[in-house]
Amino acid sequence: MRDDAPKHSPNVQEPGEHNSEAGFARLDREAFPEFEPGTVWLVGAGPGAPGLLTLLAYHGLQRADVIVYDALVSDAILGWAGPDAVKEFAGKRGGKPSHNQRDISERLVELAKSGKRILRLKGGDPFIFGRGGEECEALAAAGVGFRIVPGISAGVGGLGYAGIPATHRDINHSVIFLTGHDSSGEVPAGVDWGAVATASPVLVMYMAVKNLPEIAERLLINGRDEADAVAVVSNATLPTQRVVETTLGEVGGLAKSGVLDTPAIVVVGKASQLRENLDWYAGQLMANAIG
Amino acid sequence: MRDDAPKHSPNVQEPGEHNSEAGFARLDREAFPEFEPGTVWLVGAGPGAPGLLTLLAYHGLQRADVIVYDALVSDAILGWAGPDAVKEFAGKRGGKPSHNQRDISERLVELAKSGKRILRLKGGDPFIFGRGGEECEALAAAGVGFRIVPGISAGVGGLGYAGIPATHRDINHSVIFLTGHDSSGEVPAGVDWGAVATASPVLVMYMAVKNLPEIAERLLINGRDEADAVAVVSNATLPTQRVVETTLGEVGGLAKSGVLDTPAIVVVGKASQLRENLDWYAGQLMANAIG
Repeated sequence: MRDDAPKHSPNVQEPGEHNSEAGFARLDREAFPEFEPGTVWLVGAGPGAPGLLTLLAYHGLQRADVIVYDALVSDAILGWAGPDAVKEFAGKRGGKPSHNQRDISERLVELAKSGKRILRLKGGDPFIFGRGGEECEALAAAGVGFRIVPGISAGVGGLGYAGIPATHRDINHSVIFLTGHDSSGEVPAGVDWGAVATASPVLVMYMAVKNLPEIAERLLINGRDEADAVAVVSNATLPTQRVVETTLGEVGGLAKSGVLDTPAIVVVGKASQLRENLDWYAGQLMANAIG
Repeated sequence: MRDDAPKHSPNVQEPGEHNSEAGFARLDREAFPEFEPGTVWLVGAGPGAPGLLTLLAYHGLQRADVIVYDALVSDAILGWAGPDAVKEFAGKRGGKPSHNQRDISERLVELAKSGKRILRLKGGDPFIFGRGGEECEALAAAGVGFRIVPGISAGVGGLGYAGIPATHRDINHSVIFLTGHDSSGEVPAGVDWGAVATASPVLVMYMAVKNLPEIAERLLINGRDEADAVAVVSNATLPTQRVVETTLGEVGGLAKSGVLDTPAIVVVGKASQLRENLDWYAGQLMANAIG
């Protein structure tokens, strides 16, 4: 057992002391952490809607000298950067890496060592299928200080906007998050599909549309039902969000026929049927670009 | 197949138009969604650190007439409510429900029908082990309009602050989130522990400390290794955060001896060992109450 019992300062500044001001302006008086020059903040941008950015992420965007961003980060969120911030695209397009992961990590180290404040902005959460762990390892190895700013993962926030509870007491006490492809774009090797099929009534899959025919087949072979409910949530949390409800028996064919928009979260299991009553994000709400 | 292709308004207001202002104050000019009287916003407060609140959650807090909050929501976050907001505690204490779930749902309906703006504030994300689905069902059945504001689940954000990537390309393509007790406080019935033990190299457990001896035993019986790395992240993202690193063979004994603080997230699997290099949240950072 190793225990890192806290050694925190007695001079903690408490939030909420500036009660007289209203609105977001009040937050400008709070003691947000310093963004030290020469360090990197790995920031999750959330599932898409700008309003789902965290306060810490917004604070970091305002302070950063350079923002190194991924393909899934929207212009609206980048628009909240400080006026002098330099924005560098380091995403992947069309499933193929246009930037090598090692190149991105090396670039982050290089930028940090130039003494600037570097914000690495990734869709969702940096530690959920975001390869943030690899980037942190490179920073740590190079002696560059960093901070993780968690974000709302699309498998969580996207489901919320589709009216699908990832867990529900009557349905499941566990939920599996998995990625639909590995770094080569194929169905991940080494996944025990038999165990995945039975470990949880609800599966939440990221980046799975391309390989859905094969994944659905593996789940069916391993005992899932053809009638199992499936929801495909495309462009989750954005005004262009679209949800297709189908079954595990049919979703492979839909994927093949190209009618499923990407990026998408694919939810397998009864939870997706709850949206019949819980689909709050429709009509006028879809008109709101903030979320 | 049912398809809800978007029917969104052409008059979407784009964020980022008020570039001249700096800081959080600029957000007061953005078109955040209206909090309509007579409706309920189910808002995730995130894992604890006030800075991990979303912009939408903060906006809702400023607008709400009544805030119905759970035990895990901090005073710092409640301190960001508008000056006239009424705050009602509806949490559970000591593992036992002090408020019946049905009572909470009925109270939300009653408050909404009085024509007020009701913000239901829950720790983490409302749809991840938060019973938000049940509350939404009650609201929908009563004809009360609602909105989900997703939050950062402790199993995501807490891991980020512990320097533990929930996924890492070299370790896992899937991760299981599960709760360590059902509504009666026991190990959840109906969980296929054999499948859970093998479906993913990494397990993230919520509210599992009390039942850890039994859960660890079930995982070991079903093939997990006694030497499997385990991290217990208590008070995640707060200045009092504490991480205990141990093994699956030993964690049950630690839980029995009462040395593990709650609330805690328990991570099983190799991912927790990465924090040896990735533990950024220590020393001076712990002095910051915002996150």
